[in-house]
Amino acid sequence: MDKPINLTTTEFVTFSQGLRLDSGRFLTPLTIAYECYGHLNAEKSNTILVTHAWTGDAHAAGWSSPEDRKPGWWDDMIGPGKPLDTNRFFILCSNVIGSCKGSTGPTSINPQTNRPYNLSFPVVMVQDMVRAQKLLIDHLEIPSLLAVIGGSMGAMQALEWGILYPDVPRSIIPIAGTGRTPPMAIALNGLARQAIFNDPLWKKGSYKPDNPPVEGLALARAVGHISFLSSSSMEIKFGRRYSAKDGIFDFFGKFEVERYLDYNGSTFVKHFDTNSFLYLAKALDLFDAAWNFDSLEEALARVKCPSLWFAFSSDWLYPPEQTLEVADLLQNLGKPVEYHLIESQYGHDSFLVEPEKFIPILRRFLDHLAG
Amino acid sequence: MDKPINLTTTEFVTFSQGLRLDSGRFLTPLTIAYECYGHLNAEKSNTILVTHAWTGDAHAAGWSSPEDRKPGWWDDMIGPGKPLDTNRFFILCSNVIGSCKGSTGPTSINPQTNRPYNLSFPVVMVQDMVRAQKLLIDHLEIPSLLAVIGGSMGAMQALEWGILYPDVPRSIIPIAGTGRTPPMAIALNGLARQAIFNDPLWKKGSYKPDNPPVEGLALARAVGHISFLSSSSMEIKFGRRYSAKDGIFDFFGKFEVERYLDYNGSTFVKHFDTNSFLYLAKALDLFDAAWNFDSLEEALARVKCPSLWFAFSSDWLYPPEQTLEVADLLQNLGKPVEYHLIESQYGHDSFLVEPEKFIPILRRFLDHLAG
Repeated sequence: MDKPINLTTTEFVTFSQGLRLDSGRFLTPLTIAYECYGHLNAEKSNTILVTHAWTGDAHAAGWSSPEDRKPGWWDDMIGPGKPLDTNRFFILCSNVIGSCKGSTGPTSINPQTNRPYNLSFPVVMVQDMVRAQKLLIDHLEIPSLLAVIGGSMGAMQALEWGILYPDVPRSIIPIAGTGRTPPMAIALNGLARQAIFNDPLWKKGSYKPDNPPVEGLALARAVGHISFLSSSSMEIKFGRRYSAKDGIFDFFGKFEVERYLDYNGSTFVKHFDTNSFLYLAKALDLFDAAWNFDSLEEALARVKCPSLWFAFSSDWLYPPEQTLEVADLLQNLGKPVEYHLIESQYGHDSFLVEPEKFIPILRRFLDHLAG
Repeated sequence: MDKPINLTTTEFVTFSQGLRLDSGRFLTPLTIAYECYGHLNAEKSNTILVTHAWTGDAHAAGWSSPEDRKPGWWDDMIGPGKPLDTNRFFILCSNVIGSCKGSTGPTSINPQTNRPYNLSFPVVMVQDMVRAQKLLIDHLEIPSLLAVIGGSMGAMQALEWGILYPDVPRSIIPIAGTGRTPPMAIALNGLARQAIFNDPLWKKGSYKPDNPPVEGLALARAVGHISFLSSSSMEIKFGRRYSAKDGIFDFFGKFEVERYLDYNGSTFVKHFDTNSFLYLAKALDLFDAAWNFDSLEEALARVKCPSLWFAFSSDWLYPPEQTLEVADLLQNLGKPVEYHLIESQYGHDSFLVEPEKFIPILRRFLDHLAG
């Protein structure tokens, strides 16, 4: 019988030599938080690196304490017998740099000042996140990755693995990804930023950890949340239902969809640092796989391994056409590539809401790959 | 030769008896600001009522002073020889109640307190706006309307004319309209509201007119602006261009699309009252043509006149399917109805950006109607 993943522990490794970032600045020292599930085989050939989205963390599966209300963010996918099968694969997930979930980010201590970096933290790019992950696998003495898989910002990292380290991954699996963040997504992130900047408690990033800009961050999160949903998912989930507590003619009366966004925004504030949110939004906006290349095509020409792409019909943040553009370029370059458009009404979030729609394809792909 | 419209004057009429609103509250007295272009014919049969969108006003065409930088908001459409031809038609446009452009709204003096209403202003619905317009045409002794035409919130008013006063309009022409505001639009308006509520200068609506919540309103406007655009219009207009003034690794560096939204938000603040913005957002959210009826079908069964509907392919705020739903219901009810889906990349704003795409159909419709 398949036993679930036992209690998980987040591990940490610190690289005293740090990392040179794309901006030219050095991040020294550099700590990476990570979790592993399953066992590395003797040939060290069964590692799958899972890359997380904007507000994700290293805790992708299992329970970090018996009191947890929810398991890791991709527990549906990772475990014995699950698509990322811990009986066969060694699953590794690390927190991206710039985040606040254990890896070095704006809440970390700046060794120059012995105080938190806050806005003295350097701007990081998705490419920098991947370079930090490379330090981690080198440290773990893992020579190659069977697959790099992730959704949204995780898809960007998967693609960058193929471009920056073409000899390391044996496949990449970008889900709900894009080759470059479109202006609509930048504009929405711009709203989120401004919501935070407008909050007097933000204090140009120098808020005290126990007195963060809760209103600004909650509003910023609501912007993000809307962009992860879709018209049809909102119709299904909320329609035009009005809050039972409010009168229709109350000036402050709310529709259910507003209450939902309020609630999600206000709970998010308890779990995520505002400056990290801003730095990661910046990394998302700056993402362009053609960065440092003459064209997207030139960047993609570096990819050697097969890639498996999933896009979702109702995703208006990184629309399917954008995913298809990259897949088509790879195909034209003669690379082994599969593109699947998944019909789903749940917008960008579909990859988390309806994984069953792409899991059969993923299993087949991994079976073929693992031989 | 066709002479353009000369300098226009906004006229005002005050109804001392006021108006009973859908909420049950009375708005007394009630002032309406309006403009007219062209001449009412002897049969009083050539009036076209133009209904404006969220932040519009009565000044639809011509120049209100020689110093104006721009003519009225629909000057492309109204004038001698233009689609709404002032050589043939008498064009009337009034500011909606709840606005701040001359008709009674939150900035008006509350006769109970002799101070501005601010949040003591009653919640108004689109239906109330139309009832106020009916007071105006009765005052002007106009017995019927050749057409009621408007985009966005103007489309909602046009539809309500057909439902509330089926014997008055001889046609309605709703452009980029919907039968009920969808939850995505409500969610976006919810962001805009919260942006204002979060601004300490808002003071629960009691800000001084010379010290309004500029940051909150500018951000709220940016939310609206994004919803009026589309992915493709942003790609065309901005792409991923980065501000020439900023470094790519500046924490506060911006993309052009962000600069554009900032600029538009900050200029808007000079021209529009924050509480009015909120009251009109509320009216938009509450809009449901089925209000006070058992169903949308029952409401639409009241419409007698022909209707001409335009929807725009890239409009994701009031998507074409929503317009089509109403047009289909009207057709099933045996009403004369035309629905045209216009291919345009400019999102909800298409009706203002590319009027040439629907003008030929509109001209034919009006020619047929005017006989």
